[in-house]
Amino acid sequence: MEEKPQVARTQVGIVGAGPAGLVLALLLRRRGIESIVIETRSRAYCEQRIRAGVLEHGTVGLLEENGVGERMRREGLVHHGIYLRFAGRSHHIDFPALTGKTITVYGQHEVVKDLIAAHVADGAALHFEVGDVRIEGIDGERPVIRYRDGSGAEHEVACDFVAGCDGFHGISRDAIPAGVLRIYERVYPFAWLGILSESPPVCEELIYAHHARGFALFSQRSPAVQRMYLQCAPDEDLGEWPDERIWRELQRRLEGDDAPNLVPGAIVQKGVTAMRSFVVEPMQHGRLFLAGDAAHIVPPTGAKGMNLAVADVAVLARALEAFYGNGDTAALDAYSSTCLQRVWRAERFSWWMTSMLHRMDADPFGERLQLAELDYVTSSRAASQSLAENYVGLPLPV
Amino acid sequence: MEEKPQVARTQVGIVGAGPAGLVLALLLRRRGIESIVIETRSRAYCEQRIRAGVLEHGTVGLLEENGVGERMRREGLVHHGIYLRFAGRSHHIDFPALTGKTITVYGQHEVVKDLIAAHVADGAALHFEVGDVRIEGIDGERPVIRYRDGSGAEHEVACDFVAGCDGFHGISRDAIPAGVLRIYERVYPFAWLGILSESPPVCEELIYAHHARGFALFSQRSPAVQRMYLQCAPDEDLGEWPDERIWRELQRRLEGDDAPNLVPGAIVQKGVTAMRSFVVEPMQHGRLFLAGDAAHIVPPTGAKGMNLAVADVAVLARALEAFYGNGDTAALDAYSSTCLQRVWRAERFSWWMTSMLHRMDADPFGERLQLAELDYVTSSRAASQSLAENYVGLPLPV
Repeated sequence: MEEKPQVARTQVGIVGAGPAGLVLALLLRRRGIESIVIETRSRAYCEQRIRAGVLEHGTVGLLEENGVGERMRREGLVHHGIYLRFAGRSHHIDFPALTGKTITVYGQHEVVKDLIAAHVADGAALHFEVGDVRIEGIDGERPVIRYRDGSGAEHEVACDFVAGCDGFHGISRDAIPAGVLRIYERVYPFAWLGILSESPPVCEELIYAHHARGFALFSQRSPAVQRMYLQCAPDEDLGEWPDERIWRELQRRLEGDDAPNLVPGAIVQKGVTAMRSFVVEPMQHGRLFLAGDAAHIVPPTGAKGMNLAVADVAVLARALEAFYGNGDTAALDAYSSTCLQRVWRAERFSWWMTSMLHRMDADPFGERLQLAELDYVTSSRAASQSLAENYVGLPLPV
Repeated sequence: MEEKPQVARTQVGIVGAGPAGLVLALLLRRRGIESIVIETRSRAYCEQRIRAGVLEHGTVGLLEENGVGERMRREGLVHHGIYLRFAGRSHHIDFPALTGKTITVYGQHEVVKDLIAAHVADGAALHFEVGDVRIEGIDGERPVIRYRDGSGAEHEVACDFVAGCDGFHGISRDAIPAGVLRIYERVYPFAWLGILSESPPVCEELIYAHHARGFALFSQRSPAVQRMYLQCAPDEDLGEWPDERIWRELQRRLEGDDAPNLVPGAIVQKGVTAMRSFVVEPMQHGRLFLAGDAAHIVPPTGAKGMNLAVADVAVLARALEAFYGNGDTAALDAYSSTCLQRVWRAERFSWWMTSMLHRMDADPFGERLQLAELDYVTSSRAASQSLAENYVGLPLPV
């Protein structure tokens, strides 16, 4: 005998409580549109999962306008540029001078904490630790999300639309029938060995270091906690990287004039991040809309991942507002093409930053091209401006 | 018994009467420095050899300042931009609006004609159709160029310095001892099938067309003669390209909105141009200085080849002036590093234009990146400006 599910009804069912799903639910609520968010992980896991930490100018604006910017404004670090370091020298890219804008360094998990707190305060429907999630009926007008709660009880969310915000490894993308999606992908022959350390900042801004031994990135999480990365092999064995080797290698990749002095501290986290570019087209099928990592992945070099997710759901929220406001489906129909223009621009930028900065396989011409690119980018105002406008974020789609 | 050579003495011996050698001789004469130019080809061959045809703003200025700009000003076509055509639409890159500068379309062989005429009028030493050229003694203070004239008589040019301006296939580069030069090279998996046709212009400016069937370039030589190219295989068989197939293929690669209408005409020349990036470092050894194609090759997509040659010899002439003026060798010692910064910037630009515009091997992600790059370049002012400033020419080295 089949168990009878508990049925809930909402306008938009959202799968995934990462930045995409949580921002979407917030934007919808601000527009008077109901949603239910479900998430397989625990609230604590979502709030502690370390991911990106650079917020574009437009992302900061959107969070502030929607009432979740208060702690970000207080604790986030406003950066006025980045440094590109190569051939033993640092070169500053001055964002306000080139674009009139800044970026804010504030961990993705901090954004997630603020969003969850806002949802909880509003009494929003946000269900963690669900299992066995399925999306059904997206080709019709009444899609359904099914899942089991922590006690094993079966639930059904009947909705008008489903937003698939459950990341690259989520189930949403697979709910689209075979043959509909075209996949574009590039896997890079290197990865990042990342650490989180309790140590003072290397610099007041991020340093992107091109070095013969490999790329290194020096970034911050807070005045007391730093995030730093070393280019490594995709299958790098962390067992071969005791703390002192990491500190020595980070310092070596800073060598040259005015080399910042690295002050070691306790390494509280260590991990290897794979590098991948990935896009599916289209980003929608029937009544299912993919957003964020469920639809596209960028290598982290351009700091675009979370920002792209926020841009996607800004488009989706506006399209749903038009639908519920006056039954206009044009914006919903155009969701994929509207998002993909910005997605591909971010894919291009992330690929370009990655290609320019990492050590590639033995290719002397390619190495010289990288140095020529870095030399040109740091000596031409137009080229610096091009980097800067992408880094602070191209305009949100209209 | 060894034949006794006819001995000449000069300050700078120049091997090669292409743009590099001829401009160098001119710049030196204007500074009161003597030179002798030797060339293995005939004057007629040099004056008719079809090569590049786009002169940067700075190249035009240099030719004018040195008294060889009169016919160029009259017959050259001043262009205010180029068109990038992709996804069935043309996008204009407006050079004066973006850089305040223009380019001039005037065939390299026309520049060569004007330079030879100026040298002949000045009674300069310019010897065509020499053979068996050798460069000796570059490690000492009295290098020597040896050659045979048309009658087989042996000649010796004793000089202070030798300028190797004899192109990629010339003998100058090989006069540098083994192990001194480091070679940087990239060969592309495609070539250009180029035609010269007696037909009306397709457009008032150049069209760079990205197309699924391959790149095409529509350029002009004069109001009555056009130069057009189709991306093809490096080993393309011209026998398979009757005229009507070429015209049909050119027209197909223009398809889309407002497709310019191609008016076929007599094809008076047909050839396949290989695509290569090549740089040697350093560009000097002892008393031998390499300039132009003898030291570096760019794929023709960025129209940089002749302009780089002119920039090299501008640096060399100034360095020789400092040496003869006050014995200062600093600029001569720095010749290679001064030139190479600009050379690598041009290599980067030429590689980038080539990579963005040509159809590559099956790589769906790469194709999307190309379209994203073209979309970004034509929609961002900073990115358009970056393309434009490279196309009209970065400043000459100082």
